[in-house]
Amino acid sequence: MEKKHLILITNDDGIYALGILKLKEALQDLGEVFVVAPLVEKSAVGHAITLSDPLRVIEVERDGNFFGYAVNGTPADCVKLGGRCILPRKPDIVVSGINQGPNTATNIIYSGTVSAAAEGTIMGIPSIAVSIASFTKPEFDFAAKFTRELAEKVLQKGLPEGTLLNVNVPAVAEDKIKGVVVTKQGKGRYEEAFDKRIDPNNRVYYWLTGKRMILDNGNDIDDLVVMQNKVSITPIHYDLTNYKFIQELKKWDIRLK
Amino acid sequence: MEKKHLILITNDDGIYALGILKLKEALQDLGEVFVVAPLVEKSAVGHAITLSDPLRVIEVERDGNFFGYAVNGTPADCVKLGGRCILPRKPDIVVSGINQGPNTATNIIYSGTVSAAAEGTIMGIPSIAVSIASFTKPEFDFAAKFTRELAEKVLQKGLPEGTLLNVNVPAVAEDKIKGVVVTKQGKGRYEEAFDKRIDPNNRVYYWLTGKRMILDNGNDIDDLVVMQNKVSITPIHYDLTNYKFIQELKKWDIRLK
Repeated sequence: MEKKHLILITNDDGIYALGILKLKEALQDLGEVFVVAPLVEKSAVGHAITLSDPLRVIEVERDGNFFGYAVNGTPADCVKLGGRCILPRKPDIVVSGINQGPNTATNIIYSGTVSAAAEGTIMGIPSIAVSIASFTKPEFDFAAKFTRELAEKVLQKGLPEGTLLNVNVPAVAEDKIKGVVVTKQGKGRYEEAFDKRIDPNNRVYYWLTGKRMILDNGNDIDDLVVMQNKVSITPIHYDLTNYKFIQELKKWDIRLK
Repeated sequence: MEKKHLILITNDDGIYALGILKLKEALQDLGEVFVVAPLVEKSAVGHAITLSDPLRVIEVERDGNFFGYAVNGTPADCVKLGGRCILPRKPDIVVSGINQGPNTATNIIYSGTVSAAAEGTIMGIPSIAVSIASFTKPEFDFAAKFTRELAEKVLQKGLPEGTLLNVNVPAVAEDKIKGVVVTKQGKGRYEEAFDKRIDPNNRVYYWLTGKRMILDNGNDIDDLVVMQNKVSITPIHYDLTNYKFIQELKKWDIRLK
């Protein structure tokens, strides 16, 4: 008999989110699925890891059945701890999501969902991050089904060293989805503003707010593709070197005095 | 009279750290320096930002004199809030550091120091992250002096859009420093292990630990250069697209069913 695939799933919306329930259901027939996810929501934590506090693990039920392991840490913590201490061996794939809200363009650097998949790739495990491009109207069923197909392909083919797939699915019903595009990360970002308020004790505080800005054009940019009701798949890696600028920088001739 | 440069400095070791004091002193004569830094240490927070909690700002003294603004948030929060609400206008440069401990290779994705500089570049401000390659024997004086020279060059020449300089200085006295090298980000990472313990209430908890692994060779890799007692300067950007893999991924021919 063929050895069963071992699948680690996590997210940043927390272990009780709907997206991770749908993801677990969809991947169930691909292998043995372990859920290791933050106990509470950890959105916008970026690639934070927990060094100063002890991590704890609790077993969590949903609908009366064992569902998975909750960790008092970040999505990256969950992948590290899951892969090294909770699962019986290193998983064959890490799938992070399904996140409510898009993870595209510049904003992926703030994303706990994408960072969990990055942690998987750092551990040498093929990894996928999946998000739905809406905070308010999640249509998880198509996204879950699509993720299952893609995960099956990744299990067959693998991924290059250090590279993950960042998937963004439009928030529409399946019959409205117009295709699948391999994309580049866009340059779009939030134009932030702070909402300055006074609390009941007369002290100032600030809320971070912002407007999404689109700064690209073209048919292969992650956030634009999703706006066209197509699924975006971006191959992401963590070699951050700006190779083009290296020659120029050498000409600066920076020396010790 | 020439307009004075406006300089925003921050860190992830917290506003009371020695490194940020040395940095402020060193940059003082380049322009008007504003310190906006986390109230408490925020190491390994990656590119976390604070969305769910209000941010507060307090004025902090050191040695009886006004030193800067402390924020109950992450290094990225400090740059956003500093640049938009605290400084009189957008700063001309962001300098993050001087961090105690190296920020090289894969580990830069966990770094609050580097993420603060990344936040500066996202806001369109030339930015530098500076770290000393030792947790225990900081020799801040040379690093501070070197940063001043580099910051002056960056103020003159600018940096390409979306690109920051990640600087790592060996933890040795100035006369032991052997040169300055423009480098690439290495592939080195931590091989993690978790230290499993039982607390006095008989409950299990875990500490994240790990050993640094060097996975490169060559004369232009950030962590190797620092080990040769040279200053490493890596140009870093946040276009995470793995362009090389795009053609291959298109051949996967992923379709809707």
